[in-house]
Amino acid sequence: MLPSCVKILFASQTEKAELWLPLLRRALPEDELVAVPDKSVDIALVATPPAGTFQKLGRPKLVQSLWMGVEKLLADPTYPRGVPLARLIEPGMVAAMTETVLAHVLDWHRHFYQYRAQQRERSWKRIDQRMASDRTVGLLGLGELGSDAARKLLGLGFNVAGWSRRPRTIPGVQSFTDLTAMLRVTDALVCLLPLTPQTAGVLNARSFAMMRRGGCVINVARGAHLVTRDLLGALDNGWLAHAYLDVFEPEPLPRDDQLWQHPGVTVTPHIAALTEPRTAVPKIAENVERVRRGETPANLVDVQAGY
Amino acid sequence: MLPSCVKILFASQTEKAELWLPLLRRALPEDELVAVPDKSVDIALVATPPAGTFQKLGRPKLVQSLWMGVEKLLADPTYPRGVPLARLIEPGMVAAMTETVLAHVLDWHRHFYQYRAQQRERSWKRIDQRMASDRTVGLLGLGELGSDAARKLLGLGFNVAGWSRRPRTIPGVQSFTDLTAMLRVTDALVCLLPLTPQTAGVLNARSFAMMRRGGCVINVARGAHLVTRDLLGALDNGWLAHAYLDVFEPEPLPRDDQLWQHPGVTVTPHIAALTEPRTAVPKIAENVERVRRGETPANLVDVQAGY
Repeated sequence: MLPSCVKILFASQTEKAELWLPLLRRALPEDELVAVPDKSVDIALVATPPAGTFQKLGRPKLVQSLWMGVEKLLADPTYPRGVPLARLIEPGMVAAMTETVLAHVLDWHRHFYQYRAQQRERSWKRIDQRMASDRTVGLLGLGELGSDAARKLLGLGFNVAGWSRRPRTIPGVQSFTDLTAMLRVTDALVCLLPLTPQTAGVLNARSFAMMRRGGCVINVARGAHLVTRDLLGALDNGWLAHAYLDVFEPEPLPRDDQLWQHPGVTVTPHIAALTEPRTAVPKIAENVERVRRGETPANLVDVQAGY
Repeated sequence: MLPSCVKILFASQTEKAELWLPLLRRALPEDELVAVPDKSVDIALVATPPAGTFQKLGRPKLVQSLWMGVEKLLADPTYPRGVPLARLIEPGMVAAMTETVLAHVLDWHRHFYQYRAQQRERSWKRIDQRMASDRTVGLLGLGELGSDAARKLLGLGFNVAGWSRRPRTIPGVQSFTDLTAMLRVTDALVCLLPLTPQTAGVLNARSFAMMRRGGCVINVARGAHLVTRDLLGALDNGWLAHAYLDVFEPEPLPRDDQLWQHPGVTVTPHIAALTEPRTAVPKIAENVERVRRGETPANLVDVQAGY
């Protein structure tokens, strides 16, 4: 049990403190919010913390990521060993991810990527329409992100299949633990997986070859999920129609990378879903209260599983 | 009352007979389907019929459009005066229209039109994210199309406002009969109206000026709804962020039209929602049965109202 007032560090080189701090202060009026790490910090809120941050901490009760993906924190040799790490699953980010997935699925389904090419050539030509019920969207990952995307895709009439490590039951979703079986029914493949040694490279030539012809790949997870060379092969031989890539290895995507100008690839700068301070702060405050009451924080990372 | 077997003409220069005829034959196995007009046709199914089609007919019981928009048939001087005209409202086309509206709203909402410009310049730069609940989509038209779009936009968390001639109540939708009042709360303006003398030119400088700054205009209705010069003014002075135009006056959009290459405009070749034979044929068969039983067909056009 902590004293009623806890000391909370906000440490991020990427998240804007001016957006977060007023909301945190309002949600946690009794607590001390600091920007400089020291031995007396109880809870550290981090997203790409400045180098050396962890070494300056003592033994906080919790490190709370401001992001959902924590593979970089898990690989950080300065991370204070044994301190519980929570990832952030918050409704604004989940909704944002589904918006991005729907935008890309619809862009492919309704051929807008082809119509943009036609616009550049001033070409007026109708492409045959398909119904959402003719298409199956295959989701890699059926956790918080996958299940929200599934529900909204089903609401538009798409068939939805999903793959997860453990069997999952989501009403209306064809659920698989066998990846090959899911890929065989998939037109649009969406990667929402955490990056772990098991999931790295899952978007590869073998996977693409098992998908239905004319589909698309949407990677909104991590760059290392994709074998870029294999993707370019499947696009260039016409098996895949288009790819939507938001994440890369490394980031930012180097200026001379061929992905920037490949006609079959839509590139975005890791913006598929940003943490939304307005909806994230209540979740963080909830975890602070749990720590204050001596309870287990929500969304603790399983270090073995890697997420 | 007609004899139990009726003679049905299929006459279209744009719809593919090879897709429609097998479905129509299966749905109406007792009836005679013909491709050449003559005096004994009971029901004419039309979408851009070949010139002279109407003069060769006698006095059919019904002209059934294969499309939702009928302004060209109403303006056709050869249309057989007094013969009831039905427009086609079918679930596949309604779903397709909502898919297109969602695709464009999401493209604007999540700044994908800006990220495409960045991709061309190999620029890696995050744009601040907004939540769907920060945005209001204003629908012009709250009939079958507007209400389906409204329901699915609400499901994604957008605020939805709608304007219609007669007051409409749709759960969750801010409904207006005063256009100015709707525009004042609108970020993304979607035109789904039938083209009538009252609705022509509704997308004009005055309308754009009343919208919130930074919004977009989506015209998926008819080209004559838009005053193109006014749109270009509102894009060029930065009031509007982007426009998605599917319909033009005339069509096809001439090759030398400036819209093709305007960076603020996405052009598509009138493909927002195509009639879907698989879902349309049951609706058409239903109207054939109504005529056969001497009942009033569904979705008859009110010639005065123009739709």
